[in-house]
Amino acid sequence: MFDKEVYVRRRRTLLEKMSFIPEGKRGIAIFTGNAEAPQNYRGNDYRFRQDSTFLYFWGIDEPCFAAILDLDSGDECIYGDDVDIDDIIWMGPQPSVASKAERIGVSCSAQYADFDKAVLAARAQGRTIHFLPASRYYNTLKLASLLGIPAESVRKVLPVAGGHGCCGKAATASEELVKAVVSMRLVKEDCEIEEIDKACEIGYLMHTEARKGCRPGTKEQDIVGRMEGVTISKGWGVSFTTILSQNGETLHNHSHHQIITPGRLLLIDAGAESNTHYASDFTRTYPCSGKFTQKQKDIYDIVESANGLAFKLARPGVTYRQIHLAVARHILEGLSGLRLVRGDTDEMVAAGVAGLFMPHGLGHNMGLDVHDMEDLGEDYVGYDEDQKRSGQLGLGSLRMARRLQPGHVVTDEPGIYFIPALIQKWKMEGTGGDFVNYSALEQYHDFGGIRLEDDLLITADGARRLGTRRLPVTSSEIEEIMAREQETL
Amino acid sequence: MFDKEVYVRRRRTLLEKMSFIPEGKRGIAIFTGNAEAPQNYRGNDYRFRQDSTFLYFWGIDEPCFAAILDLDSGDECIYGDDVDIDDIIWMGPQPSVASKAERIGVSCSAQYADFDKAVLAARAQGRTIHFLPASRYYNTLKLASLLGIPAESVRKVLPVAGGHGCCGKAATASEELVKAVVSMRLVKEDCEIEEIDKACEIGYLMHTEARKGCRPGTKEQDIVGRMEGVTISKGWGVSFTTILSQNGETLHNHSHHQIITPGRLLLIDAGAESNTHYASDFTRTYPCSGKFTQKQKDIYDIVESANGLAFKLARPGVTYRQIHLAVARHILEGLSGLRLVRGDTDEMVAAGVAGLFMPHGLGHNMGLDVHDMEDLGEDYVGYDEDQKRSGQLGLGSLRMARRLQPGHVVTDEPGIYFIPALIQKWKMEGTGGDFVNYSALEQYHDFGGIRLEDDLLITADGARRLGTRRLPVTSSEIEEIMAREQETL
Repeated sequence: MFDKEVYVRRRRTLLEKMSFIPEGKRGIAIFTGNAEAPQNYRGNDYRFRQDSTFLYFWGIDEPCFAAILDLDSGDECIYGDDVDIDDIIWMGPQPSVASKAERIGVSCSAQYADFDKAVLAARAQGRTIHFLPASRYYNTLKLASLLGIPAESVRKVLPVAGGHGCCGKAATASEELVKAVVSMRLVKEDCEIEEIDKACEIGYLMHTEARKGCRPGTKEQDIVGRMEGVTISKGWGVSFTTILSQNGETLHNHSHHQIITPGRLLLIDAGAESNTHYASDFTRTYPCSGKFTQKQKDIYDIVESANGLAFKLARPGVTYRQIHLAVARHILEGLSGLRLVRGDTDEMVAAGVAGLFMPHGLGHNMGLDVHDMEDLGEDYVGYDEDQKRSGQLGLGSLRMARRLQPGHVVTDEPGIYFIPALIQKWKMEGTGGDFVNYSALEQYHDFGGIRLEDDLLITADGARRLGTRRLPVTSSEIEEIMAREQETL
Repeated sequence: MFDKEVYVRRRRTLLEKMSFIPEGKRGIAIFTGNAEAPQNYRGNDYRFRQDSTFLYFWGIDEPCFAAILDLDSGDECIYGDDVDIDDIIWMGPQPSVASKAERIGVSCSAQYADFDKAVLAARAQGRTIHFLPASRYYNTLKLASLLGIPAESVRKVLPVAGGHGCCGKAATASEELVKAVVSMRLVKEDCEIEEIDKACEIGYLMHTEARKGCRPGTKEQDIVGRMEGVTISKGWGVSFTTILSQNGETLHNHSHHQIITPGRLLLIDAGAESNTHYASDFTRTYPCSGKFTQKQKDIYDIVESANGLAFKLARPGVTYRQIHLAVARHILEGLSGLRLVRGDTDEMVAAGVAGLFMPHGLGHNMGLDVHDMEDLGEDYVGYDEDQKRSGQLGLGSLRMARRLQPGHVVTDEPGIYFIPALIQKWKMEGTGGDFVNYSALEQYHDFGGIRLEDDLLITADGARRLGTRRLPVTSSEIEEIMAREQETL
């Protein structure tokens, strides 16, 4: 948790950002913290994770809290329940809700059920109620019932400040509030960058554990456990379900039942959350036998230099779409050198040929969420009036296309994959025309995939790789350190 | 996953159990598998956990499946979606839904959306729709919308076979289905016991890791990470959020920020799920310095012998309530010996004095859930016509009171705690009358708590402790092994 002043300042900024709405018509902004999420049954819950925007403005990291910010009067109130003797027996003594509110600079506090009453009262007065789209089904149910709208509308985002508010026919989440929150959370404060650096250090440790565990004969699941253990010992846990697979061509592979096999590649995309819930996200790809084959090294080096190119290009004023396209070009040039594609590079970039090999975007924003604010809508977070989403495979999956500003935190994660079903589809449908050398690609049907990812902070004049130390990444660094580590065990 | 025959047999048994309802009036039983549970946003989900009853009858361990069993015709169908090229890129190629259905002996399969259509069609025909109370908010939303009933009713259980079915005013979850499912899942099959033994072995390993990590200066969180890493390497993960605390007097303490401190006790209540989702659940309490003080040993030995007493008494025909009361008596006798309580033991047991020191029940059922079937309602699982719930502190929290049968799996987890707020409350309110020696208890305000837990299988003529080896438990075993382990590091 940060100092009280951080939360006070953030809420003041939010009030200012919403003050473009005429006074007296602003209404209230409501914030529903998360409840516990049942795993098997209510009472056997997943590890509690607070809503990120709630954490950002209100800091309280506990279930069943809510808050209201009156956009007209500036009044604010925290809602939550004090503990009784049963709670003390099962969960221990707790500070009062009033003292938790005081800790974040809020002088008003009330019971959790009073939140519902306050929202209903505002509805009765015809005030506009601004809320953010709910990801959790608990909050979907709560908001739908409280606002008298269908569950689908709780996730829909539209302008609501026209005066009709939440309770008219167009009752949805508030685009005005979404945009204000996104504009703030996108640019990280120094105290946030410190936390992301910590999360990256935990990421470094978990990936180091993974690399040491990458030995023929080991079960993938065994390595995943060792990695995740580190994230729980040092932080909150993983920032997303660990991707660890010798089938790296599957972008989000969560099955871990295979045995590490000499000659294959092991792709590991994994990150940690700090105890304050800031994320890291790194990918490395290792040769299972400790040494790359020439064929693997050829592809690996293209990806590794693409990762370095993106880092070199990242600076304020450049759009992340431009960097994605520069990386796409770089990858196509590399693949041309291996005769897997052929023809004019500009034409190939324009035709989206890179999407066959990298069907995802170069990166995404990162902060309190690993894909930062994805619950608020990727098009609000990674796009704006300046940048519109493409329909092309690969470029169309780019989560972050915006013009970079100091304080942005983005991932840099190019990859090259040989996905048999996708290659087959393109070949059958004639996509990619004559650019793709399908017969040469036949030699790659069991290659897998390679991705390399670092986390970048955009600075005043360039970018910094987050974390205090970088995971080994060049093919020679990887082979050297794996040789050394295999000796010592 | 078990052999096809297991699932076929279970569904056949369920049909038989529901056949007490007159033919033609039975209706359909619907089973909603779980969807992914969003952690931050949809797409960044918690580790997927299937609904336990869905696993039990339908075996498929993937999100967004559903099933219908026609209780009149015996027809059955699995609903789920086959993958498209986008899914293959992100999640890899998958077997078809038809082949997944075939794997569990179901010949009919259809798309996930067809489940909704089939339920709506049954509603239109006025058939009774039996469903189980939903724990997950996703299924609550789904069932409420599909059945046209309020969200609250989705968790309410009442008889529905009177003919009014799901769509009348009393539309709720089906008591008939709940009772049939509980009667089956309560008595474990051999293949289930094998899996519970595996989960217990993982529990053994995680607790061993914890005991080795229990050294002055270590952060509690560090030990938790090491334990949970083991559960992910060897199984699905933890069967519930790990309780590890030097404030053992708080029954479910999930905060792990303290440093291991000489002289204190460390209570660890934790378990694992096997890859097939069967649970284990063990508790041990260690002296942080490796050696108990005399005062700690006095209390420890009472709890340890209480745990042994419950094991000795557990056999078919005895109720778990009787064993709980025998343990309560044993604890009171032990505390009398230390002059913390005084008076006639029978009177103290009847007055519920044990509840001050053990405000929880002796144990609970365990299987696919650590508190087995708690989502179906503790009163259906742990109680029946034979046993009604008490209102007393401690005994009233007993989750399992039933008459034991071979195949029952229950935990044996007595404890003694000194909870300052509870002692203060009883003293102020005069609860416990003259039985409690409040002035002697003042010496225990910073003692903490001790709990010791094993998992028992009720056999033909007694009980077996589950797992292949038992965690060290007597005070001398603990001190010896901790001394040995501290030497070796």
